[in-house]
Amino acid sequence: MPDEPSFPSLQMFGIKTPLIKPGDNIAEKIIDSLEKQGLIFKDNDILIIAESPVATAEGRLVRLDDIIPGEKAEELAEKYQLDVREMELILQECDEIFGGVPGAALTITKGTLAPNAGIDASNAPEGYVVLLPENAQKSAGRIRREIKERCKRNIGVIVGDSRTQPLRLGCVGIALGTSGMVPVEDARGTFDLFGKEMTITRKAVADNLVSAAQLLMGEAGESVPAVLVRGSPAQVVDDDIDMPLFSREECMYYSNIRKA
Amino acid sequence: MPDEPSFPSLQMFGIKTPLIKPGDNIAEKIIDSLEKQGLIFKDNDILIIAESPVATAEGRLVRLDDIIPGEKAEELAEKYQLDVREMELILQECDEIFGGVPGAALTITKGTLAPNAGIDASNAPEGYVVLLPENAQKSAGRIRREIKERCKRNIGVIVGDSRTQPLRLGCVGIALGTSGMVPVEDARGTFDLFGKEMTITRKAVADNLVSAAQLLMGEAGESVPAVLVRGSPAQVVDDDIDMPLFSREECMYYSNIRKA
Repeated sequence: MPDEPSFPSLQMFGIKTPLIKPGDNIAEKIIDSLEKQGLIFKDNDILIIAESPVATAEGRLVRLDDIIPGEKAEELAEKYQLDVREMELILQECDEIFGGVPGAALTITKGTLAPNAGIDASNAPEGYVVLLPENAQKSAGRIRREIKERCKRNIGVIVGDSRTQPLRLGCVGIALGTSGMVPVEDARGTFDLFGKEMTITRKAVADNLVSAAQLLMGEAGESVPAVLVRGSPAQVVDDDIDMPLFSREECMYYSNIRKA
Repeated sequence: MPDEPSFPSLQMFGIKTPLIKPGDNIAEKIIDSLEKQGLIFKDNDILIIAESPVATAEGRLVRLDDIIPGEKAEELAEKYQLDVREMELILQECDEIFGGVPGAALTITKGTLAPNAGIDASNAPEGYVVLLPENAQKSAGRIRREIKERCKRNIGVIVGDSRTQPLRLGCVGIALGTSGMVPVEDARGTFDLFGKEMTITRKAVADNLVSAAQLLMGEAGESVPAVLVRGSPAQVVDDDIDMPLFSREECMYYSNIRKA
């Protein structure tokens, strides 16, 4: 057996799949696609899947012509320059709207900030949109357990999405739900280069893994909806751990956001 | 020559260095450390370096006892529960403060959101703090040109930092400055899975690379201040391209933030 290298390293592989359709078994599609690329899952691998194919497989495609907008949707669609049927869906999906810019209503949806409640018209058939997975953690859990059963491997699974950051141009990754891994690691109690104890640092490991995956995924029609990360220091556990969220009071951004 | 694999993939290597001190030639330290790990730079590699060692090498260490706080610092230090000398430095460093929570003043510094103006007490000697590099893009450029001269390779260099995201727990990566690469790629004009043209999507490639690097870097005393990414689809160019920033009016977060 070769010596372990004395420095940390990891590898990432984009997984090319056929177009994912409603009702598809996404775990099966990924295992098959991986095999075609000459790869198999190993213990401690992390699999990142984009939310849009996960939601599509789960039947979260909605035909806009089937939506009857209410009065509130009419008003806000004009304010934020959005399709009134999409605005109606945003209202149905989100926990809260607290502002927006032309083309985007800023919402909290399923506990996380999401422009337009995460509703996506790209990578959906003409006239349709894709809603976020109903519960991304459960989606990740289902896919993880299916892979575990078929491949006898313990891996972590992340359902990821893209988000913009405040005052930054361009999309980065965010983990909507994870299964089989520790999504946020606590560095409190560790020590810095000078031996001083670290006090408040936590690492958003799952978010970082999604951002890394986005380097290979692309946003458009590349058909790379999933990425395998091998050798990452993420802690794989045979369990579902909730994504810990900041309370609104603790969050330095939110506590300075006033409802528009 | 082996066939190119038919799927995208990349590799990342953490670079372990000795402790970086003021006046150190950081390019040299990194080349030497890489060599000890049995690695050399190749064309199109991306090198990500944490801002703290870059700033330290540039002499941006400040002894807190040398700082004489003004009245404004006294007032805000109490409001945000910060060391009054650090608060004075925050005021000197930042473009603007627009709120905060206990332990963190929310600022815009050198154009990007930065708690406490990016001033860092961790990984600094006792009684000292590290300011952000004076100009992270210039720092990245100097390091890139030094590596190009010594190794005859065209690489991209990113000076990265960590940030929290709104309503999320844990730190992700952010690129403070880049050189030799396209930091934000424009996906407008490309097509989605259904052949519809993408309209507003941009990829924050540099931010995603820093987030990926943070998987191997750690936040505390791991002495892995730099990461080499090989095989990423980032576009390496022999030039310095400014980090494009959203205007405050365009930003859906900022346009909903009111000064506290």
